[in-house]
Amino acid sequence: MYGYTLKKKELQDRLRRIEGQVRGIQRMVEEDKYCIDILTQVNAVTAGLKAIGVGLLDGHVRTCVRESLEHGEGDEKVEELVSAVARFVGR
Amino acid sequence: MYGYTLKKKELQDRLRRIEGQVRGIQRMVEEDKYCIDILTQVNAVTAGLKAIGVGLLDGHVRTCVRESLEHGEGDEKVEELVSAVARFVGR
Amino acid sequence: MYGYTLKKKELQDRLRRIEGQVRGIQRMVEEDKYCIDILTQVNAVTAGLKAIGVGLLDGHVRTCVRESLEHGEGDEKVEELVSAVARFVGR
Amino acid sequence: MYGYTLKKKELQDRLRRIEGQVRGIQRMVEEDKYCIDILTQVNAVTAGLKAIGVGLLDGHVRTCVRESLEHGEGDEKVEELVSAVARFVGR
Repeated sequence: MYGYTLKKKELQDRLRRIEGQVRGIQRMVEEDKYCIDILTQVNAVTAGLKAIGVGLLDGHVRTCVRESLEHGEGDEKVEELVSAVARFVGR
Repeated sequence: MYGYTLKKKELQDRLRRIEGQVRGIQRMVEEDKYCIDILTQVNAVTAGLKAIGVGLLDGHVRTCVRESLEHGEGDEKVEELVSAVARFVGR
Repeated sequence: MYGYTLKKKELQDRLRRIEGQVRGIQRMVEEDKYCIDILTQVNAVTAGLKAIGVGLLDGHVRTCVRESLEHGEGDEKVEELVSAVARFVGR
Repeated sequence: MYGYTLKKKELQDRLRRIEGQVRGIQRMVEEDKYCIDILTQVNAVTAGLKAIGVGLLDGHVRTCVRESLEHGEGDEKVEELVSAVARFVGR
């Protein structure tokens, strides 16, 4: 049972919306829409994905990391979290 | 005819791949996969979108901005490019 | 005469402010201030630098790139701009 | 005693280097250096600050967040971490 399962439906809804936005961008390219307008949509999807990433980290710290630490076995989880945060902010 | 039309097919291919990745993430959530693994996939999609954004800016400068400036009428295009870059870098 | 010389004084003022903020962060570290507060200051400096980067690109397109294109010798400038934009947004 | 104090000297060294780079950029502007070269230096400083930010988050998770969670009182720390990451990734 992972952290994000608490809000599994919300996560799924957001991902479906993002899938729809990506298809919308494909249509814009198909119809030769103006590049700056397409870029604006690409930025919107990126923002949506970042928000999902933050939500995943949030759930992860609140559940997996917390439980492991409370049971005194958090070393691996802390390493994993640290490198996940580094990769997430490093792009 | 916009800059990105030169590589329209490549753009479409990349967007389809991203759509597939987003559906893959939905499946991972559906199957309660580990949150850090899902985050890794979210990062991969974000990186793919960033590359698309750079490609769009590239085509835009090479065609729209260039042509407007060559005809001495680039003011609006320059404004637009600079504010697109500003939004893209998160300012 | 480059684009940014138009606003040379403003650029210098901003850079001096950033230098002061970086020294402020050194003091915070020296005084063992709370890490999240230091991170907030680091973010503020990063935001200031991004704004400067956008300003430099703006001046560059408006002057160097524009003039080169108006004189029909813009190929090199366009390549340079495209790769500068790519590096700038890629971090 | 915060996480970053473990590597306080390294942090200070990096910040001093960044301060020096910012002064170098001021000189470049003073001497009317080419805007693209200045932008390259601005990018270098931004990259240095990002690395510092990742290091601060790293130390924070390993110490403050970890200790609070081990003592079952991590709620506030988790909130704080997640919102710091969110601000850091530009959301």
